[in-house]
Amino acid sequence: MQLTQALHKAVRECPNAIATIDGARRRNYRQLVDRVARLAAALRSLGLAPGARVGMLALNSDRYVEYLYGSLWAGGAVNPVNIRWSVPEIAYSLDDCDTRVLLVDDAFVSLLGPLRELSRSLTTVIYVGEGPLPADCLGYETLLAQVAPAADAQRQGSELAAVLYTGGTTGVPKGVMLSHDNLAINVLATIAAAPRAAQVPALHAAPLFHVGGIAYVFQLTTRMACQVIMPGFDPGLALDLIERERIVESFMVPTMIRRLLEQPGFAQRNLASLRTLLYGAAPIDSTLLHKALDALPNVEFVQAYGQTEVSPMVAVLPAAYHTLEGAAADKLGSAGLPVSTAELRIVDDGGVELAAGEVGEICVRGPTVMLGYWNKPEQTAAALRDGWLHSGDAGYLDADGFLFLVDRIKDMIISGGENVYSCEVENALLRHREVATCAVIGIPHERWGEAVHAIVVRQPDAHVGEAELLAHCKELIAGYKCPRSIEFRSELPLSAAGKLLKYVLREPFWKDRQRRIA
Amino acid sequence: MQLTQALHKAVRECPNAIATIDGARRRNYRQLVDRVARLAAALRSLGLAPGARVGMLALNSDRYVEYLYGSLWAGGAVNPVNIRWSVPEIAYSLDDCDTRVLLVDDAFVSLLGPLRELSRSLTTVIYVGEGPLPADCLGYETLLAQVAPAADAQRQGSELAAVLYTGGTTGVPKGVMLSHDNLAINVLATIAAAPRAAQVPALHAAPLFHVGGIAYVFQLTTRMACQVIMPGFDPGLALDLIERERIVESFMVPTMIRRLLEQPGFAQRNLASLRTLLYGAAPIDSTLLHKALDALPNVEFVQAYGQTEVSPMVAVLPAAYHTLEGAAADKLGSAGLPVSTAELRIVDDGGVELAAGEVGEICVRGPTVMLGYWNKPEQTAAALRDGWLHSGDAGYLDADGFLFLVDRIKDMIISGGENVYSCEVENALLRHREVATCAVIGIPHERWGEAVHAIVVRQPDAHVGEAELLAHCKELIAGYKCPRSIEFRSELPLSAAGKLLKYVLREPFWKDRQRRIA
Repeated sequence: MQLTQALHKAVRECPNAIATIDGARRRNYRQLVDRVARLAAALRSLGLAPGARVGMLALNSDRYVEYLYGSLWAGGAVNPVNIRWSVPEIAYSLDDCDTRVLLVDDAFVSLLGPLRELSRSLTTVIYVGEGPLPADCLGYETLLAQVAPAADAQRQGSELAAVLYTGGTTGVPKGVMLSHDNLAINVLATIAAAPRAAQVPALHAAPLFHVGGIAYVFQLTTRMACQVIMPGFDPGLALDLIERERIVESFMVPTMIRRLLEQPGFAQRNLASLRTLLYGAAPIDSTLLHKALDALPNVEFVQAYGQTEVSPMVAVLPAAYHTLEGAAADKLGSAGLPVSTAELRIVDDGGVELAAGEVGEICVRGPTVMLGYWNKPEQTAAALRDGWLHSGDAGYLDADGFLFLVDRIKDMIISGGENVYSCEVENALLRHREVATCAVIGIPHERWGEAVHAIVVRQPDAHVGEAELLAHCKELIAGYKCPRSIEFRSELPLSAAGKLLKYVLREPFWKDRQRRIA
Repeated sequence: MQLTQALHKAVRECPNAIATIDGARRRNYRQLVDRVARLAAALRSLGLAPGARVGMLALNSDRYVEYLYGSLWAGGAVNPVNIRWSVPEIAYSLDDCDTRVLLVDDAFVSLLGPLRELSRSLTTVIYVGEGPLPADCLGYETLLAQVAPAADAQRQGSELAAVLYTGGTTGVPKGVMLSHDNLAINVLATIAAAPRAAQVPALHAAPLFHVGGIAYVFQLTTRMACQVIMPGFDPGLALDLIERERIVESFMVPTMIRRLLEQPGFAQRNLASLRTLLYGAAPIDSTLLHKALDALPNVEFVQAYGQTEVSPMVAVLPAAYHTLEGAAADKLGSAGLPVSTAELRIVDDGGVELAAGEVGEICVRGPTVMLGYWNKPEQTAAALRDGWLHSGDAGYLDADGFLFLVDRIKDMIISGGENVYSCEVENALLRHREVATCAVIGIPHERWGEAVHAIVVRQPDAHVGEAELLAHCKELIAGYKCPRSIEFRSELPLSAAGKLLKYVLREPFWKDRQRRIA
């Protein structure tokens, strides 16, 4: 399959339908395709080789859609940058897969100086902002105006389409390589699992550098929908856009749904156009669902569970199970049923398949499973065994085949929809010379779902305090990964084999609640 | 993608769900997969090489499903035999792609003698009937009992999955090569275009050697449905099965729907379970639809237009357009909107793209377009140009992007420089109440190149003559489109698929001349 086919179809079948809305800018599919083909021409004129990566460090915008498709149309692959990363993390993700061209918007132009100093691969920066052209940058609109639209390179099938960096369970970012087939088959599987009307206005709420946002762009374009985009999630703006553009569906994380409902003046809004809220990254808790069903009685809620390595859809919990009554309510805590492209099995540490109800590692096989990790043959071999992706998620299948997530194998924390890998935070803490050992866990947080909490054992005679350790962490990792709270203890609970028992640490925080991790 | 993945999923997700019902035999997915894996083992023990073809010459049965999947599981490709073909035609379709193994049931066992004499490739016959084992045959059940289930060969992607012979309407059979990707992507595109519930009982009405029937097997298995099978379409038996097995959907040709409605005792049947009737091969006429909507008010009708070369789905006319009132009624004669895997364009003789409303050849591009014709590089090159399949169908797109079929290109008549679409003339003739069926062809004409000639079958006891029919036509269509001559016959030649064989009708007129081919 070929991801750009959706554009060829749209420009043929509905050239005048609005493709993107970003603030006052509205572009139809003919204009979108023209701009995509011009960006592709510009990228080629800059020497982009087939399969070469193109990065973007920016808030959500209509240009993000143009960037995703323009890079593919040029014959390249996208390497969208996580906007919460520190400069060293960004440089790593560019250099690791040799990304030479980067698009940057106004929000991140201040990082360019240190980024150029640190990155070995970065050679060309395209400025997609609204201000005056920064030094040593090419202007996006000027580039597009200077070239004639290029013909589509028509890369397809198993050819590389994206390198998406994930924190990984080890705390070392890994570039997940996804092909045209991976991402295009995911589109069809998602539509088949959650059928919705075509050509409707839809709101992008999730960041477009995430696999969830990227996959939603591809899906909406395939459905020839109108993609309404805001720079970042803002509940007031989201409500404005739902009213003004008569938004029919959106994809959110549960925290966003919560913030939407809690927005002052929510009850006065006219949200009658809204039909479907897909949500992912975490299951919805029953209190929030109760509120949401009450507040939006005509909206269908659909949970999507996936991960970057599966392009990303693994399972879907259909609208019918979003109820608090009857037999279906038992499935509300579930991640749903496998989509038609995903075979699932649960295995123990030795790779032996487990029976229904038994907790083990979730493994996935199918045509949307990644090509591998960029330049990481060992991690690839560890993740892909006999054709099965070992997801790193612990869970079980119930007797009806519904998937339940129990824990991240390596104790991932989900805070405000962002994945925080505890190892990475622990590694940062451990680099402080007065830290002997530590454990980072997720504890309940009203707004973010979980907050990052650290338990630290100091070196003998050391006296480092919370503030100093926090400042230390902020130098090394993104703000959202830093602990929100730190406590000090004299020892950590260990198993007989000497392994840290995080569930023992988590227990007192979670005793009254069910902790669920996607 | 890998067509057998559907079986791996089904045996994992719903092993005890009924997979096939054929008369008194009911098999669940665990049993189906066991039998598929055993058939694969048997085929391999017979020396089947990777990608080698396996034929089946049989009426519809549960074993047909086992054959389709068993051949793929073994690593082979299917070459299902058209059951209406003569022995020389069958031998041609086996020899052309070197099919050595053939499964044969009781209905066709009498053809084995002459077939073995004629065919050069056929070496092994597996008897899938209920009677005593014929000479020089292997018994299907004995073979399955003798072996242990084989591991799935897991062929996939662009590897060959099927060679399907078409060409009935031109008289030159061609083996359409379809890959795992072609057929598996078609499944997802079909489900996305016409979403229906999973795991429901569905009735196979179309022959399983046809691309329509084969694609429906793959689609139903992916949806983990229960496939209810009858040997051939019988309206009384179909009604029995709908009642007894509480059938929820079926795929039929319009003639089958007509026969269902005309079956004595139809009104007394309890068909409340039926939700969807997909139909293909021909648009439904308004008289039939009126009857059908009246008789089955709770059934959604969905038209599927495709051809073997596109695996087969090209366009779908959704249920909403199956109405006789309002704006949507204008689309009833349409083949619908392109599915999400199909780009469509209409071109003239010179390959120039035409505007909306202009009639030309329908061309299709996308991931379900065939690999090519077996061992026919010239015909393949003629059909696949710059990635576009030239379908041989004439049609146009209306202003809303709905596809309307006009004729087969080869059936178009060029008379005095004017294009005459035989369908249009036939539709005019059919509106005379004494015409039962008819065919309009071009015959040689000294001055105009071709002249419009009609062959008409009258209704029983009707006596309408040439003059009256000509006068009737002149009231409905332009003079140059009206037949120059009309002859009356008692029947018309039909293909195995029930399609009119115009080349047979044309042959006596053109035997000494070369007819230009569009």
